[in-house]
Amino acid sequence: MNESSTSVAGSLEPSDLLFAGAETVKERIYAQIRPDLERIEAEINAQLTTSVPLISRVGQYILGSGGKRLRPLLMILSARLCGYQGNHDAALAVVFEFVHAATLLHDDVVDHAEVRRNQPAANTIWGNPAVVLVGDFLYSKSILMAVGYGDIRILEVLSNATTRMAEGEVLQLIHADDLEINERDYLEVISRKTAALISAACHIGAIFGGADGARQEALRNYGDNLGLAFQLIDDTLDYTGDIKELGKAIGNDIQEGKATLPLIHAFRSQDAARKKRLRKIFSADEISMEDFQEVRDMVARSGGIEYTQRLAMQHVQQAKEALAVFPPHPTRKVLEDIADYVIFRRV
Amino acid sequence: MNESSTSVAGSLEPSDLLFAGAETVKERIYAQIRPDLERIEAEINAQLTTSVPLISRVGQYILGSGGKRLRPLLMILSARLCGYQGNHDAALAVVFEFVHAATLLHDDVVDHAEVRRNQPAANTIWGNPAVVLVGDFLYSKSILMAVGYGDIRILEVLSNATTRMAEGEVLQLIHADDLEINERDYLEVISRKTAALISAACHIGAIFGGADGARQEALRNYGDNLGLAFQLIDDTLDYTGDIKELGKAIGNDIQEGKATLPLIHAFRSQDAARKKRLRKIFSADEISMEDFQEVRDMVARSGGIEYTQRLAMQHVQQAKEALAVFPPHPTRKVLEDIADYVIFRRV
Repeated sequence: MNESSTSVAGSLEPSDLLFAGAETVKERIYAQIRPDLERIEAEINAQLTTSVPLISRVGQYILGSGGKRLRPLLMILSARLCGYQGNHDAALAVVFEFVHAATLLHDDVVDHAEVRRNQPAANTIWGNPAVVLVGDFLYSKSILMAVGYGDIRILEVLSNATTRMAEGEVLQLIHADDLEINERDYLEVISRKTAALISAACHIGAIFGGADGARQEALRNYGDNLGLAFQLIDDTLDYTGDIKELGKAIGNDIQEGKATLPLIHAFRSQDAARKKRLRKIFSADEISMEDFQEVRDMVARSGGIEYTQRLAMQHVQQAKEALAVFPPHPTRKVLEDIADYVIFRRV
Repeated sequence: MNESSTSVAGSLEPSDLLFAGAETVKERIYAQIRPDLERIEAEINAQLTTSVPLISRVGQYILGSGGKRLRPLLMILSARLCGYQGNHDAALAVVFEFVHAATLLHDDVVDHAEVRRNQPAANTIWGNPAVVLVGDFLYSKSILMAVGYGDIRILEVLSNATTRMAEGEVLQLIHADDLEINERDYLEVISRKTAALISAACHIGAIFGGADGARQEALRNYGDNLGLAFQLIDDTLDYTGDIKELGKAIGNDIQEGKATLPLIHAFRSQDAARKKRLRKIFSADEISMEDFQEVRDMVARSGGIEYTQRLAMQHVQQAKEALAVFPPHPTRKVLEDIADYVIFRRV
């Protein structure tokens, strides 16, 4: 599963075979969800209409920049798995994309990001003030959209998730430039900042689909494990990914002072001299390509990538097992495929 | 009603007499609300407890820096006027202070503020990233607290208000450095950014207090007019206030490129040469004390302060008239006193 892409051109590595399988999984997923994706896109555009053109512009920019729509899709699929068959689900699904977009906008301000998904970050075009305020709008609008469904349980799960997300973002900030963050604290951060919303999308899908408590809990659990796996793999991509595919600068996390699990694992297995060297590189204001390559090599040699991927695979396994309460069903299969795809994905 | 404080020491101006009256009104208000204020303070502290100490610290800083607790008080008083007699109202009241604090934090980032209420602005101590994220936390937490009351109507009014607020903040940003903003657009901005939340506090108090539709509408209307009057007077204070009392730099609005009604009125009544001069001062990167004094004099001579105060008084009148659907009641009297006090206040 090592994706560190050190393969010599022409040779075929095991990972390439896995990725060939990934393409099949991806096609199978898309064959099922294409109509849902179209409904999601239409609803995003409809909901971005406001009397304030700047909001629509910044909103369209952040929401139109190639997101995977993972969260709204999971909400729709979760509702369907629980028996929902109508098409009144789109606005509730878009809630999760709006919350996600709001956090991306605020993250860009927090991280002083310059690039996101191969495009200039929104703050470099419109400035921090507009980006902070449009983030606030998207967040408020998402609550308003959820309120429209008239179910207090939905609001309860949603506002619990967003509160946990904000705590996770602050925790991450506290650990900025902290190379010695331990694995438990790191997992706490990603559990809140990423898994909470993905889990809420699945849980709320179940509520909306009329599921009983056990099925709600199963989908909440699926989403939680999927979210952890998703972020763990995301964090490996910073050390393995291809800059063109990833759409952000390689080594972004380390440049922003974020120690993620591949690096945490690498650091704790080094001797004192190499720890010192890692600390020096990590704490520099600007990290050169050479220094980043040195860190990348240390991470690869320490097995930090495999360690992180293995943990992600465990969570994917747990996510799939959580779905066992549901009978075999094409939608259950799509959710299982999505869980598998999280491991395969290169972008 | 001119508070431009150009009075020679020793002479007594009409405004001083009004302020003597204001002190009486203030005392009468406080005699009624002191126990409520204490409950609000206790609840704020209780709700700021989180597992993330930085959130509590920044939260305590922004929430402990001398706010008037106007919004939570209005919620409590509105509920009481509609018949509520318990003490389960405090957490719902604090929702409005948390939303307000979140906007203050984000405003400080947007405006690059250095001082708020005579203290360093939070962003100058903790930096923009922490301030953006703690603002997000307070906003999410406020929704979560409101959800705890299990009434979807409360969430509907609240999320409508916060969405309008975010739109108002973006509108204000669009009109930054726009000296030629017309009165209607200015009123639209303050209606959203300030009146929406104050109105929601009163409206939700009425819902919580079990009021019928007419009484809900009366308190919503009271809050809307009170909020407009409050912001109009706030905007005059920038041209009349005492720097020590106001707790922010005099001329703050103009330094931040905000044309408020006193200046809008002054500008439209100038001849071409003076308009040009105003434009030049207004568009400077940094406005000197002398230049600001020149603007202040132009505003005073044009009657911009009185014009704004007169409009505020009309809204106070409308706010009080809206309460006419309620029978005479000590709580109605406090709400009327608060409306009057909005006009008198110097800080």
